[in-house]
Amino acid sequence: MSDSISIASPADFHVHLRQGKLSELVTPHVREGGFSLAYVMPNLTPPIKSTKDALDYKTRLESIDPHVDYLMTLYLSPELTPEEIRKAKEAGVVGVKSYPRGVTTNSDGGIESYEAYYHVFEAMEEVDMVLNLHGEVPSDAAADIHVINSEPHFLPHLIKLHARFPRLRIVLEHATTRAAIETVKSLGSTVACTITAHHLALTVDDWAGQSWNYCKPVAKYPDDREALREVIREGHPRFFLGSDSAPHPVYNKSTASPSHGCAAGIYTSPILLPLTAHLLESFDALDKLEGFVSTFGRSFYGRPVQSEQGAGLVTLRRVVRKVTSSYSRGEDIVSPFWAGRELGWEIVPRQ
Amino acid sequence: MSDSISIASPADFHVHLRQGKLSELVTPHVREGGFSLAYVMPNLTPPIKSTKDALDYKTRLESIDPHVDYLMTLYLSPELTPEEIRKAKEAGVVGVKSYPRGVTTNSDGGIESYEAYYHVFEAMEEVDMVLNLHGEVPSDAAADIHVINSEPHFLPHLIKLHARFPRLRIVLEHATTRAAIETVKSLGSTVACTITAHHLALTVDDWAGQSWNYCKPVAKYPDDREALREVIREGHPRFFLGSDSAPHPVYNKSTASPSHGCAAGIYTSPILLPLTAHLLESFDALDKLEGFVSTFGRSFYGRPVQSEQGAGLVTLRRVVRKVTSSYSRGEDIVSPFWAGRELGWEIVPRQ
Repeated sequence: MSDSISIASPADFHVHLRQGKLSELVTPHVREGGFSLAYVMPNLTPPIKSTKDALDYKTRLESIDPHVDYLMTLYLSPELTPEEIRKAKEAGVVGVKSYPRGVTTNSDGGIESYEAYYHVFEAMEEVDMVLNLHGEVPSDAAADIHVINSEPHFLPHLIKLHARFPRLRIVLEHATTRAAIETVKSLGSTVACTITAHHLALTVDDWAGQSWNYCKPVAKYPDDREALREVIREGHPRFFLGSDSAPHPVYNKSTASPSHGCAAGIYTSPILLPLTAHLLESFDALDKLEGFVSTFGRSFYGRPVQSEQGAGLVTLRRVVRKVTSSYSRGEDIVSPFWAGRELGWEIVPRQ
Repeated sequence: MSDSISIASPADFHVHLRQGKLSELVTPHVREGGFSLAYVMPNLTPPIKSTKDALDYKTRLESIDPHVDYLMTLYLSPELTPEEIRKAKEAGVVGVKSYPRGVTTNSDGGIESYEAYYHVFEAMEEVDMVLNLHGEVPSDAAADIHVINSEPHFLPHLIKLHARFPRLRIVLEHATTRAAIETVKSLGSTVACTITAHHLALTVDDWAGQSWNYCKPVAKYPDDREALREVIREGHPRFFLGSDSAPHPVYNKSTASPSHGCAAGIYTSPILLPLTAHLLESFDALDKLEGFVSTFGRSFYGRPVQSEQGAGLVTLRRVVRKVTSSYSRGEDIVSPFWAGRELGWEIVPRQ
């Protein structure tokens, strides 16, 4: 059992870097967590809907930490045109994110059906932009659709989109169910899937009455968690890390009033690589760490792995260390997942 | 559509009246909520395990509000003997409550299997004491058992107990699933089932990220809620109200830290009859209100309905009124379910 592991260029293919002061606090945590590539979600207020907005946002992130490769995305909305897609592609924007209406933070402008966007998807397929899907349908009590089965109910949309646009690269984001894993495996090479670190740890029991473990999609059953673990243990190249690291101010996570619940989101950026190593080791998949956090995702997105020593290599060493309880900057305070708990790995500082 | 309803002697066949200062705050809310009978849960610290403890507890409750008929219960534990059952019966104790280990507030001493208690159940059957079952098995990730399927996994125990002790009166408490409703319906006349008011309102979506709606058993899927509503609409006499009203200090309900979640329990006592009327009306079962909150439960437990005018009659009138946001006494503060929301009924004060 080795006491150190070196990973080529860890890449987080799904992260929320927020805006304003909170962004200044959390953006540096991408590198603190061991990552040099951040695939940046567009659900700001207002959402990132144009090439110009995406480039402006990228400039702001680079002013906070210039040493990260930020891959930018647009928010799928009726304003998005095939012309804007081509313009975005030329400007280096990588993907378009689709949110079902109302299911997570800042998704009120999300989509309700996909047919209206087929002309946009055609343009994306043509120029090779990636479609990132938040794979849940909105809850509907009359149809017995709720937070637990909202992902399985979304999968027919994924299957249909892939059949209609077989060359369009699609990523089902933050999969949480055995049904989702099996569906993605059954589809072609243009369909991939991100998995978060926290969904490798949590089940429904963990967020029952514990808002710090509450995120969307919610963690599901133990058997679903086992399916996520299995596909990583298998080393399947179309399944890779997207942390969905989603910081919220501590008061929004810790305090609920009778009229208002807690924010959905789990913050893993500052501990992401040690946490992922710790979790993969817990289910005998540590040998798949580099594939899961670096090479599989980079390969799907066509991003080179910078593995030459001294450039993109990150080394972990085995040591028991408690997760920092909170991070603050000015008035902003965030707490990471597993605050106060022990991880078995830490990042070796660069010389 | 009538603007007033009179109900004979509402009876709450499952309520937590707590101990100490909190008990002084919440016990008077039984009558404030329109009820004159309280079937009192024994999960204090330490639990009520003997006839003496039950009688002492009853005396304390009567000193707080003597105008309620308190039906007392014992906590099923290895200390309980057939002799103690006979003694309890003679002293007027009505039932024995079984908690699976670790599934809810103060259940650390709960049971793990029933065979060890068969001699106690034989004595209970003989003297006609009621067995009240918290119908959940503990979570077990290796067996894919979690808070959502813990009640269906318990049902084989209920079936087996009823087969072995067909004359023993058994109540499956606070049923939350279609499976539980169907199972109880399929069993004999000695098996009944309580349903809470809040489980007629909530689904899993409501407690996701909202600790004020978190209780055990957790609210399940919309289709499960529909099954609870259907059996009430049907007017089935073996299904009746047990509020499981479970007050906690507001800070234990509202605030979670990364290391500690919120308390499980929903507090409905002070608004119980108006809330139940409001909910039953919402699913076209208002004509079943008296059966559900009074006669069905009293009939199963063999408690007379005192319906003569001026004795046990409670009248509701139609009026839109906001639920009080909190109740306090000294340093204790509790907030009721639906705080700040509107109910369509209120209790007419007695002349």
